[in-house]
Amino acid sequence: MVTQVNHRVNFYDTDAMAVVHHANYIRWFEIGRVEFLREAGITLNELMKDGFVFPITEVSAKYVSPARFDDELIIETIPTALTKVKMAFDYRVLRVLDGTLLVQGHTQNVFTSRETGMITRLPAKYYEKLKAALD
Amino acid sequence: MVTQVNHRVNFYDTDAMAVVHHANYIRWFEIGRVEFLREAGITLNELMKDGFVFPITEVSAKYVSPARFDDELIIETIPTALTKVKMAFDYRVLRVLDGTLLVQGHTQNVFTSRETGMITRLPAKYYEKLKAALD
Amino acid sequence: MVTQVNHRVNFYDTDAMAVVHHANYIRWFEIGRVEFLREAGITLNELMKDGFVFPITEVSAKYVSPARFDDELIIETIPTALTKVKMAFDYRVLRVLDGTLLVQGHTQNVFTSRETGMITRLPAKYYEKLKAALD
Amino acid sequence: MVTQVNHRVNFYDTDAMAVVHHANYIRWFEIGRVEFLREAGITLNELMKDGFVFPITEVSAKYVSPARFDDELIIETIPTALTKVKMAFDYRVLRVLDGTLLVQGHTQNVFTSRETGMITRLPAKYYEKLKAALD
Repeated sequence: MVTQVNHRVNFYDTDAMAVVHHANYIRWFEIGRVEFLREAGITLNELMKDGFVFPITEVSAKYVSPARFDDELIIETIPTALTKVKMAFDYRVLRVLDGTLLVQGHTQNVFTSRETGMITRLPAKYYEKLKAALD
Repeated sequence: MVTQVNHRVNFYDTDAMAVVHHANYIRWFEIGRVEFLREAGITLNELMKDGFVFPITEVSAKYVSPARFDDELIIETIPTALTKVKMAFDYRVLRVLDGTLLVQGHTQNVFTSRETGMITRLPAKYYEKLKAALD
Repeated sequence: MVTQVNHRVNFYDTDAMAVVHHANYIRWFEIGRVEFLREAGITLNELMKDGFVFPITEVSAKYVSPARFDDELIIETIPTALTKVKMAFDYRVLRVLDGTLLVQGHTQNVFTSRETGMITRLPAKYYEKLKAALD
Repeated sequence: MVTQVNHRVNFYDTDAMAVVHHANYIRWFEIGRVEFLREAGITLNELMKDGFVFPITEVSAKYVSPARFDDELIIETIPTALTKVKMAFDYRVLRVLDGTLLVQGHTQNVFTSRETGMITRLPAKYYEKLKAALD
């Protein structure tokens, strides 16, 4: 399952080069990841109430072309790996108007206990949903 | 007591007009407020461990002149009112190079219980420190 | 004309109190303002190409109730005053789920020449659209 | 030459997990990079006035341990490669109190013409300073 979510570039997302500041895409990968989980049937709030958090351990991005104020973007989220303790995603950010690929990204996240802060195995009720969404 | 803290404008603080985005000054008032508390002998972490938070209920700002990338700024924090349940501050953001006043601001904060989320009276150990700093 | 635009609270919009950081609402007023202009038939990009910018000179906000991660919000933008050199707006941020008013705000903006940085009179082609939208 | 710059974690840098949001470190790498250039004798403002910009083409980060509100951090910037058209840096973010390594990062930047947006060769007056700083 690949999910898509739209995001319009705000004025406050730009920097003095009149393009989107590169750190904002890292934030937008999060929008994509949260949407992916939602479409897989999991909300972060539900996960957190059950005592799990899903912190990032690695992120990378390649910047291909800049986005500008008021551009309508699509954030694509593609799951690439899943075990009971971690999950990885690729991301593609594209401009709606012309389909240009702007940024590619990758994150590695781990399932972690809120209480102990330690990596922990995800229970079946979540794992099965993610497994289904990965295929 | 008036406190001063320096802040250099980062590239990511600017927007497509090549000036600091106006919402960032609201963040910087917080830097000033935290520094004021610290110089009054109170850290927010200590307050929070004791079960208090200090949320904002009102903020206002007047933008006089824009700051730009790499400007060295001073954030001045001036306490203007204190009761056992709330505290108000004025702020002035100035450019170090020429002393230009860039932004003036005001916030109203309330002492709140972390547990109940309700406004609560600050214990003497904190109130006395703030009272001393106000004079 | 009152305009509405939706915004879902991102995880990166929250702070260590597990609520939306107060400075983000100031950013979201901008989302509302840009949408108001768009529905009035004006894009900021068009204004800027014509040599005008629309900086904020004053902002204020009252925080009534906190928003949390994943809340779906409505940003309402209400024009309150217009002359050829400035425009003022009120804002209301509400939670969709229960209609709770979270934040009220106000901004004062001025029409400014990009070239000179001076306040300037807006040409009729923009002013008439805004005037129509105000009524 | 390795440069160090200090940064105290602001409340607005944290998220609902009560730790620094991961995207902020990408911003802080920029603080490190700007400081590196400054210590090498180059300001970004000077580069930009000369018609050059220095956009990022790749970024990566590994998150080892979280920073929290009010932590005093050191951002270390280590140059790893330089040609006339690009430069790469490694970053290490450490907590001052205990020296803990929190985040490691890497960026690839390219020297670009502001006018054309194309990658361009850096003139000797800048290149020589960077070359000296790399050794």
